[in-house]
Amino acid sequence: MIRQLAIVGVGLLGGSVAKAARAGGLARRIVGVGRDLERLRPAVDDGTLDSAVTDLGAGVREADVILLAAPVLAIEGLLERVWGAAADGALITDVGSTKRNIVRAAERLAVTRPLAFVGSHPLAGSEQAGYRVARADLFRGATVVVTPTEKTELAALKTTTGLWEALGARVTSLDPETHDRTVAAISHLPHLIACALVDGAGRVEPGALELAARGFRDTTRIAGGDPDMWTEIFLANRDALSAGIEVFRQALGDLQRVIESGRADALRAELARIKAIREQLR
Amino acid sequence: MIRQLAIVGVGLLGGSVAKAARAGGLARRIVGVGRDLERLRPAVDDGTLDSAVTDLGAGVREADVILLAAPVLAIEGLLERVWGAAADGALITDVGSTKRNIVRAAERLAVTRPLAFVGSHPLAGSEQAGYRVARADLFRGATVVVTPTEKTELAALKTTTGLWEALGARVTSLDPETHDRTVAAISHLPHLIACALVDGAGRVEPGALELAARGFRDTTRIAGGDPDMWTEIFLANRDALSAGIEVFRQALGDLQRVIESGRADALRAELARIKAIREQLR
Repeated sequence: MIRQLAIVGVGLLGGSVAKAARAGGLARRIVGVGRDLERLRPAVDDGTLDSAVTDLGAGVREADVILLAAPVLAIEGLLERVWGAAADGALITDVGSTKRNIVRAAERLAVTRPLAFVGSHPLAGSEQAGYRVARADLFRGATVVVTPTEKTELAALKTTTGLWEALGARVTSLDPETHDRTVAAISHLPHLIACALVDGAGRVEPGALELAARGFRDTTRIAGGDPDMWTEIFLANRDALSAGIEVFRQALGDLQRVIESGRADALRAELARIKAIREQLR
Repeated sequence: MIRQLAIVGVGLLGGSVAKAARAGGLARRIVGVGRDLERLRPAVDDGTLDSAVTDLGAGVREADVILLAAPVLAIEGLLERVWGAAADGALITDVGSTKRNIVRAAERLAVTRPLAFVGSHPLAGSEQAGYRVARADLFRGATVVVTPTEKTELAALKTTTGLWEALGARVTSLDPETHDRTVAAISHLPHLIACALVDGAGRVEPGALELAARGFRDTTRIAGGDPDMWTEIFLANRDALSAGIEVFRQALGDLQRVIESGRADALRAELARIKAIREQLR
């Protein structure tokens, strides 16, 4: 049972944690921290938050668990102030979709003051953003990756894992670097590729998009994501993304060479191999 | 009213045309032509076809409208035999997803015998194939591209357009080359890219696919398509696809450069521009 849960950034993810924690009775008090009190008001009015503040220090000072749910680059920027304001013994976690930058920044701060930090990344969300679309069941059945390192205390890891599991998630653990390569491959790269496909289709044939069928709409759905959020994600995970782009270019080049060779049997074998990989996802 | 409709290849597309034509009373007789009588039997048994034959010549000889609904490279291979067997005055159309190869082959044949051919490409279908998944409403609201050239007779174009409209489709017209560039951009390239993403994800990080979230599954859904069908399509549209890949690589490279420069404002502007293009598709 959390005595006081502070949620910094009450949007889709932070708001959904607050709603799920409220619904599950996981925290005695839930405090929301944001830059604009007006935008926090709906979460107070509907009983999700006990109080809302714009002062980060005041918001986190009394909390035993602090969840940083701001955009990913903002989380990195918030850490130092959170470190200065949090109580001894507080556990800090986050929802940032890149982990190396955040975890390493927290570890640098922990050298001067030993607060517990465990990186978290819930693989949940949608193209839509804001508290308006937050919901108590967002994490039910979702995967949350936690990213402990050799410096993480076991008790802190257990508390973090327990929190996500209490919200209905399956928790899996990766080191921050593996996490960042993984999300580059399964999330950031597909997003970037979808953007390039939309942009490229119009360059190939100006009228092409008018004829786009279901396959194209599915493949490029994620290109409709929030530009602000994706700018942060792409920049925060720049290195792993660049490496992922190179691997993708090679995979595409391999397929292209088989097509240009005209060897139907070899192409069919490649497509069957990839189809089999894809079918494991269903 | 069609007197006799011959459908060569009674799979998802050919079977759906047959079912829709039967349901709409568009043809007095519907004859199915296939390589395996056993596989045509369900369409006879359920009353969709009046008869089924394996002899292409016998199947098309009495028809006033002949629909070629075999895989795309097979259609090209069938044309010469259809040309030899069809009655004077017959109209031939097809469902091939590339058009330059088929239309140009038909025009070469028309030099020696003036039969009417109009290329068609229904933008409808699914990852699944076969008569089993055929349905009378497959074309309802779908787009069908017809690809007349300067050699196409107006009456034949009108009949073809009328047939698809009677099946519930919206018909649009493109020259064969523009059609092939367009489908490369909106269908073949996205498919190839989805394959490269699936293949690349495992190369970046072996465990990555286990964590794939909804965005990845949507983006790569089409990579589960039938390898036989896509081998034919990629090879049939090789030239336009190669050109499309180059344009895509440029679009990806442009985005990559902005990310690697770290210029958040420029990246946000690019993503917002692409999001706006994507939103026109909804």
